[in-house]
Amino acid sequence: MAQKETIGFIGLGIMGKPMALNLIKAGYRLTVNNRTPEVMEELVGVGARAAHSAREVAGQSDIIITMLPDSPQVEEVVLGEGGVIEGIRPGALFIDMSSVSPNTSRKVQQALSARGTDALDAPVSGGQVGAEGATLSIMVGGSEESFNRARPVFEAVGKNIVHIGGPGAGQVTKIANQIVVGLTIQAVSEAMTLAKKSGVDAGKVREALLGGFAQSRILDLHGQRILDGNFKPGFRIGLHRKDLRLALETGREAGVPLFATGIAANIMDAMIAQGDGDLDHSGMAKFYAQMSGIE
Amino acid sequence: MAQKETIGFIGLGIMGKPMALNLIKAGYRLTVNNRTPEVMEELVGVGARAAHSAREVAGQSDIIITMLPDSPQVEEVVLGEGGVIEGIRPGALFIDMSSVSPNTSRKVQQALSARGTDALDAPVSGGQVGAEGATLSIMVGGSEESFNRARPVFEAVGKNIVHIGGPGAGQVTKIANQIVVGLTIQAVSEAMTLAKKSGVDAGKVREALLGGFAQSRILDLHGQRILDGNFKPGFRIGLHRKDLRLALETGREAGVPLFATGIAANIMDAMIAQGDGDLDHSGMAKFYAQMSGIE
Amino acid sequence: MAQKETIGFIGLGIMGKPMALNLIKAGYRLTVNNRTPEVMEELVGVGARAAHSAREVAGQSDIIITMLPDSPQVEEVVLGEGGVIEGIRPGALFIDMSSVSPNTSRKVQQALSARGTDALDAPVSGGQVGAEGATLSIMVGGSEESFNRARPVFEAVGKNIVHIGGPGAGQVTKIANQIVVGLTIQAVSEAMTLAKKSGVDAGKVREALLGGFAQSRILDLHGQRILDGNFKPGFRIGLHRKDLRLALETGREAGVPLFATGIAANIMDAMIAQGDGDLDHSGMAKFYAQMSGIE
Amino acid sequence: MAQKETIGFIGLGIMGKPMALNLIKAGYRLTVNNRTPEVMEELVGVGARAAHSAREVAGQSDIIITMLPDSPQVEEVVLGEGGVIEGIRPGALFIDMSSVSPNTSRKVQQALSARGTDALDAPVSGGQVGAEGATLSIMVGGSEESFNRARPVFEAVGKNIVHIGGPGAGQVTKIANQIVVGLTIQAVSEAMTLAKKSGVDAGKVREALLGGFAQSRILDLHGQRILDGNFKPGFRIGLHRKDLRLALETGREAGVPLFATGIAANIMDAMIAQGDGDLDHSGMAKFYAQMSGIE
Repeated sequence: MAQKETIGFIGLGIMGKPMALNLIKAGYRLTVNNRTPEVMEELVGVGARAAHSAREVAGQSDIIITMLPDSPQVEEVVLGEGGVIEGIRPGALFIDMSSVSPNTSRKVQQALSARGTDALDAPVSGGQVGAEGATLSIMVGGSEESFNRARPVFEAVGKNIVHIGGPGAGQVTKIANQIVVGLTIQAVSEAMTLAKKSGVDAGKVREALLGGFAQSRILDLHGQRILDGNFKPGFRIGLHRKDLRLALETGREAGVPLFATGIAANIMDAMIAQGDGDLDHSGMAKFYAQMSGIE
Repeated sequence: MAQKETIGFIGLGIMGKPMALNLIKAGYRLTVNNRTPEVMEELVGVGARAAHSAREVAGQSDIIITMLPDSPQVEEVVLGEGGVIEGIRPGALFIDMSSVSPNTSRKVQQALSARGTDALDAPVSGGQVGAEGATLSIMVGGSEESFNRARPVFEAVGKNIVHIGGPGAGQVTKIANQIVVGLTIQAVSEAMTLAKKSGVDAGKVREALLGGFAQSRILDLHGQRILDGNFKPGFRIGLHRKDLRLALETGREAGVPLFATGIAANIMDAMIAQGDGDLDHSGMAKFYAQMSGIE
Repeated sequence: MAQKETIGFIGLGIMGKPMALNLIKAGYRLTVNNRTPEVMEELVGVGARAAHSAREVAGQSDIIITMLPDSPQVEEVVLGEGGVIEGIRPGALFIDMSSVSPNTSRKVQQALSARGTDALDAPVSGGQVGAEGATLSIMVGGSEESFNRARPVFEAVGKNIVHIGGPGAGQVTKIANQIVVGLTIQAVSEAMTLAKKSGVDAGKVREALLGGFAQSRILDLHGQRILDGNFKPGFRIGLHRKDLRLALETGREAGVPLFATGIAANIMDAMIAQGDGDLDHSGMAKFYAQMSGIE
Repeated sequence: MAQKETIGFIGLGIMGKPMALNLIKAGYRLTVNNRTPEVMEELVGVGARAAHSAREVAGQSDIIITMLPDSPQVEEVVLGEGGVIEGIRPGALFIDMSSVSPNTSRKVQQALSARGTDALDAPVSGGQVGAEGATLSIMVGGSEESFNRARPVFEAVGKNIVHIGGPGAGQVTKIANQIVVGLTIQAVSEAMTLAKKSGVDAGKVREALLGGFAQSRILDLHGQRILDGNFKPGFRIGLHRKDLRLALETGREAGVPLFATGIAANIMDAMIAQGDGDLDHSGMAKFYAQMSGIE
């Protein structure tokens, strides 16, 4: 069997660190870099090499992965001073697994392609649990060829791996996912709050609806959370709000008026301003309960 | 085995007629009444007796069922001149299977209860197809005892039969269902329109999302309709708008601000005003496509 | 000078009583009726005649005025048992000064017109202060001829009196007014809350805006209330919500998607549910302050 | 009389060029710079000196003014390579008259203040007409001392000049203005469309409302435009949308849920996507007319 490709991994946060660990477990040799260097120690302890900059990571790796908070960080780490673009070798492959603007993905892909390197955007869903368990869903944009090359790497960190289309298509898919998830939570919140305030057993309503056309994984799982008032994250409202910002920016740029997404974002803003930004996103139901004068 | 109860059936429209036929098929003796009497002929042809008024129907039946367009019609037929209340016998059972305001259900239940008769609200979902195939979902409000008494009747017209709670609870559940369904369609429409306008294959996006937390029956079935541009009803936007009116009225009266439901209702109003009220409700995606300058 | 016409006045609430008193002051002879008869005493003390029913009022008056809470009350008092329609004389004039659905106005006008009597819809704005000071704005729908006949009566209770068009046009104008007023309050609330939360002196912002294109009477007067946190009514949120219900109903029936009006109504619902329905409508700013975590 | 301060002016677009001309007319000596250098010729023809970079402008001027499209351009021109910050002299004054994010204003002010130079944010309203006629409204953030120093310069280009508060306060005020203006247009559009679709003379409705509490400059001027269907800009929807983006970003960062602003932005997005982005912002009424099936 061919030697595994060497991997550079930049961004060892809540998601990035367990992903990097899973890559090491799968037998990959890693060079890592992180804004706050202390985090690298744990990785070094299990065999990773620490690099001083994104450029250095890039210079030593066949495949370079970034897992960063937002578009500006990705642009800075890839295209900025001391960035990936300064060190990356022709024939290497760059994969951004952060959730960022599709425009950022396209911009990065074009800049790297001018240097003879291909790029994939491969945002994930599944959260910290998925990152630790290597069960992330991965939505990939970029060329078929690079997708096939990256597949073994993806399989070391995720499970449901789909190639959607060209550069940026992964990010668009991630955004579409966050729209549907956020708005379905809002739908369930409105329905269950109405039932509760009308004096009807919201648990029975959920059960009845699960048997019909209103069925969804969210009605099932988050519906139960709402019944239990259990808003321990899970996926925080503050993070979902960031994803809806990407959605609304993309909608504005593409010319798609996302009426309902805008309302959901407003409600998340209100929750964050009132100190509920760290609740699980199913906590949107709490907003509706308060608005309805329920406790 | 005990003799089956006699049934009166008022309201032989698109839903009511096939339901009445299914009851006859199940061996019930029916007395029927309809605003436009011609419709009764078909029922009479298969053994039903025609009555001249709601009062007359009520006087001849153990169980009286109404299947009418909206709250005012139910109040008129039950409580108005020549109405059910004038003919109904003590010990009879009244079942309203229309989708109406929970307040109407409670008002009817109280008025009949003062006459020694119990009432159930038992709205359905499943549309014409469910009515014809006797596969309707039935959400029931009212006493446990009456629910048990009515169960064989429900089983002759439906399948997924749930007792939710006291008077009006069936209507609240139906409304909750229509909120979740309408808002999930809107969610899917926003996401798929964004994908399409961004140049990404919306079919692949749907597929990827179905594998994750965004999964829903609506993303599956209506997502496919949206891809196909197939908005042949199914369940018409005009009818869904009526249900959202009930939702918004109930929200206003109960004190629950249904932000997203209001937006969905606005969009349906715009579609109706532009001549698209007879599209299937999955046709909300057409509104978003137009708003985005697609086609 | 010709003898003044005799007036029947039905509905002696917060608005109706001072209006009736102003008519008496202006020299009109009044027959009055009210659901709770005690209220009539004060009117009788200054010369009015009390009647036992709307029919009796109608039988004794040249011009019959109603000032009632909502559409169902107007339909009941005019068209119901013992109603105006049973007593009104050919050649009499009916004027509804309540704020109701344009459809109710048209229905009443048609029913009375079939009896040889003309009708005007003449809703007012200006609140209790305007009713007491005879400075109400009056928006009139109906025939030119009846408008001219009614003008002296209107001048006894109001100031800014405008004939808009045919039956219902007065109500449509009142609704348009309440939309603009409600949404301008919302606009000012969003702008001033943003200024405040951004650490900017909202009073100076208001002043600067008043000098430019954003100028409005509401920014001037309600902007000051918002600065002062003075939400003593004035015009209550609960009443404004009723007017927006008429707006949304009319929008739905006419086929006009009132997106922003819907949002304002949602916010008012939330305020009412949380116990703020009796604040002045400028109190929408309080909702935004809470949502923003201010105080 | 003291010698006038020398002025550097960067950004000679639709707004900037007439402002620079008015400064020359008022007797100021100008050094100018523009991304596309051809535009400088006209200014040079009336006595301005052309500079090759923002740094060069800054090196030759007592007061440096920027008038640029958006936040990134201001950050680039001031803080980027060859930017103002590299050339500006201690004791000079920087004034940004662009409409940008309050955060950008604060960032620029802090960076320059570290170099011994003060900065003002001084966005304007009044459009091209106001720029040409030197009648702009100017909303100023920054120190009292610098405001007083800049006042003669402001008076050469504007009329209604207000000092609001510290750094960023001018931008917040401009944003507040654009919120109120946009949402009042939306209010008037909803009201007038409802009147029209209800068969009522929208001109008479506007007139009646102008006499009461709904009065606003926008109902007056844009109400007339809406009646005339005259959507020739004026202030384009595309530009107003940019300002609402600043509003929504600022709202998100400050924690203020701008529900109605979000809806207005959605509607503008839809108009832009359908090719109406160059209409005057009063053209929001066209969206409502289309949505209502008028024409």
